[in-house]
Amino acid sequence: MLVIPLIERKRDGAALTAGEWSHLITEYTAGHVPEYQMAALLMAVFLNGLTQGELDAITEAMIGSGSRFEFGSAVPPRIDKHSTGGVGDKVSLVLAPLVASCGVAVPMMSGRGLGHTGGTLDKLESIPGFRTDLSIARAREQVERIGCALIAQTEEIVPADRKLYALRNATATIESIPLMAASIMSKKMAEDLNGLVLDIKRGSGAFLPELQDGLGLAQTMVRLGENRGCPTVALVTAMDRPLGSACGNALETAEAIRTLRGDGPADLLAVVYALGVEMLLLAGLEQDGPAAQRRLERVLGSGAAAEKFAAIVELQEGDPHVLEQPDMLPQARLREDYVAPRSGYVTQVDPRFIGRAVVELGGGRQKTADAIDYSVGFVITARPGDSVVGGEPLATVHARDREGVAVGMRTLQQAIVIESSPGGALTPLVSHRVTRDGVETVD
Amino acid sequence: MLVIPLIERKRDGAALTAGEWSHLITEYTAGHVPEYQMAALLMAVFLNGLTQGELDAITEAMIGSGSRFEFGSAVPPRIDKHSTGGVGDKVSLVLAPLVASCGVAVPMMSGRGLGHTGGTLDKLESIPGFRTDLSIARAREQVERIGCALIAQTEEIVPADRKLYALRNATATIESIPLMAASIMSKKMAEDLNGLVLDIKRGSGAFLPELQDGLGLAQTMVRLGENRGCPTVALVTAMDRPLGSACGNALETAEAIRTLRGDGPADLLAVVYALGVEMLLLAGLEQDGPAAQRRLERVLGSGAAAEKFAAIVELQEGDPHVLEQPDMLPQARLREDYVAPRSGYVTQVDPRFIGRAVVELGGGRQKTADAIDYSVGFVITARPGDSVVGGEPLATVHARDREGVAVGMRTLQQAIVIESSPGGALTPLVSHRVTRDGVETVD
Repeated sequence: MLVIPLIERKRDGAALTAGEWSHLITEYTAGHVPEYQMAALLMAVFLNGLTQGELDAITEAMIGSGSRFEFGSAVPPRIDKHSTGGVGDKVSLVLAPLVASCGVAVPMMSGRGLGHTGGTLDKLESIPGFRTDLSIARAREQVERIGCALIAQTEEIVPADRKLYALRNATATIESIPLMAASIMSKKMAEDLNGLVLDIKRGSGAFLPELQDGLGLAQTMVRLGENRGCPTVALVTAMDRPLGSACGNALETAEAIRTLRGDGPADLLAVVYALGVEMLLLAGLEQDGPAAQRRLERVLGSGAAAEKFAAIVELQEGDPHVLEQPDMLPQARLREDYVAPRSGYVTQVDPRFIGRAVVELGGGRQKTADAIDYSVGFVITARPGDSVVGGEPLATVHARDREGVAVGMRTLQQAIVIESSPGGALTPLVSHRVTRDGVETVD
Repeated sequence: MLVIPLIERKRDGAALTAGEWSHLITEYTAGHVPEYQMAALLMAVFLNGLTQGELDAITEAMIGSGSRFEFGSAVPPRIDKHSTGGVGDKVSLVLAPLVASCGVAVPMMSGRGLGHTGGTLDKLESIPGFRTDLSIARAREQVERIGCALIAQTEEIVPADRKLYALRNATATIESIPLMAASIMSKKMAEDLNGLVLDIKRGSGAFLPELQDGLGLAQTMVRLGENRGCPTVALVTAMDRPLGSACGNALETAEAIRTLRGDGPADLLAVVYALGVEMLLLAGLEQDGPAAQRRLERVLGSGAAAEKFAAIVELQEGDPHVLEQPDMLPQARLREDYVAPRSGYVTQVDPRFIGRAVVELGGGRQKTADAIDYSVGFVITARPGDSVVGGEPLATVHARDREGVAVGMRTLQQAIVIESSPGGALTPLVSHRVTRDGVETVD
């Protein structure tokens, strides 16, 4: 196909037609368009943007590049959640079984850790035996049977995105809001959903730290979902501090299990409930927020969500005894407490420092092929706003060797800021709600 | 090398250092930077531009990617001319031997036809036996001996430009003024010049039709030359109509020969003299324009320039008898006159239509590997401003078959506009002069 005239038009700020995008993405995925032409086009898109029509067409073409889920009407309302990623964000491990226990089907495709942010798949795989590489057929069967599967994007799903993502990664065109939106939404729309909730993180630990960028991404994704007939709601949540206490794969899985068993940190629970409420509303299982929240609290309290998680672990070949014995998760050889260097107020726990250090300790990948040490990470009990006394333990480093402990200690020293007077008000855990009707602030 | 951070900076509108550009171009030419990364970077450059410092560094790195001429002080002032290309533009074939006859050394590297514009090499190669593929050593020896060589860019000269140009051609990044300037100037600076004159065409037959774009390119190239210690002057000349009467390789060579023998069209002579004056001034052979012009007229009238051209043809293995017998140039099988469809005033002879038709007749390349039919083209005697009578011959089509004749006739019908009242004033043949001191209009 003649790609140069398309690059020229995009370069000059014009829009391509839906048919042109569709043809281009099909031909590119089939290997008939050279990488260098797509690279030039992606940079032109990065700098000149895309119209909503182009974005809809790209997303549609990407979905069409591979297989997708097809549930039909037999399966209850299917609602998924996607997060833009953060540090200590183990929401999916609690939310998916909790919402599934309420009668929502959750065919959740997640990602791996990326940069300083963790990934749901890595956390799940810290459970001995747990497999995330299910085929579409098997995942579908599991969703039909128990209402939830927690899986990786397979080779069959949206191959265009895998190819485009790799090229964007090599050509500095990742941080394009429309391209990010198309990448995320094409995968979510391949799940054959009746509704989607987006968790847009803001703050230094987020992929897009600035609120305005996050809102832009949220609005773009909401429009993409709605235009394709999938009701979509986004919440903007705080990622200027880690979510919960645990940061690191097995440590976060253990914290998620404690939460499912009724002993979760308040901030994690608040985010889980806020997202869960939206999912129940989208599913039509409840008509108002307070009722939905009560239902989630009731189901969590009953132990049904923990049982659901055990059922998922079992069907995905992990050891379900992990629910009763979180100690069977990988344990780091060394643990060392970090104590407050002086008395005062904690004004900051910077999640980006923590996320990067988890990777440095071996808990994330510097290169795609790197193996992960699931055991390492941090448990940080100090929260911004706390008043602390010098010598009081604020956090624990979990590392495989002395060098790791040293890295962890240095990191905590940088990340946890103690000042003599209290800091300002914290960013609300949930600050904005974005729907097709617009942006509203959340009290 | 780490290319992604460089792409990011250029994408975000920042400048790379001279060292970064130098390293990047070296590594790219050596095949160590993937084409897709360079493609993304080129699009970012296209859209975000380059600082003068970056442009100087790129040009320097490109020159350094290969071999270059080195004349030393033994050879007289070396001055070259470069044109941005037009239709009927056979200036080089007259100017180079003329100026060389005045005592200037002209080591002229030219290009082939590109799009609708013709190329000096193709015109020269219409002379039976003429070779343009001389080595640097042989071309240098010829310049030392007779003051002029008319050659192609060899494999040895600026290989970075050849590679980058091919990539730009495939990624819609050709029409970038700074990249065009770097591409042209790197090749010219590899000729070891003491001065350079640029012929910047404006009008529908030019590569950059708009005056402002042409002036931008002129200023950029003048700065590049001056910053590298090569005094550079640019003239903006008219390309809203063909230059001279002949359009097509052998036809143009024949017209150039007639001009060298004292029988040239006035517009061609005017442009040759204007550029020649600048070359003599840059060479320091004359101190003022009128004296330089008189010298050029005298040398042309003496027959010395025609003899010089014959010497060049002979040393480059062409048949020098072509000077006396232009009929030995390839002749088209069919010739057909185009007559005025009605009486009136010629208000336009659109060079772009003519240039495209020469390619369609077989006189240019649609693909790089295409062979050229040197014989085909047009001789257009009608000029904008002429008053014509219906039925009067305005032009002749030279074609190899009836289909070509039909294409030629249709083209002339479109290109030559006859109206009942005279058109406005013509664009001056030479309208602007650009030096390091700025832009001045020419009366």
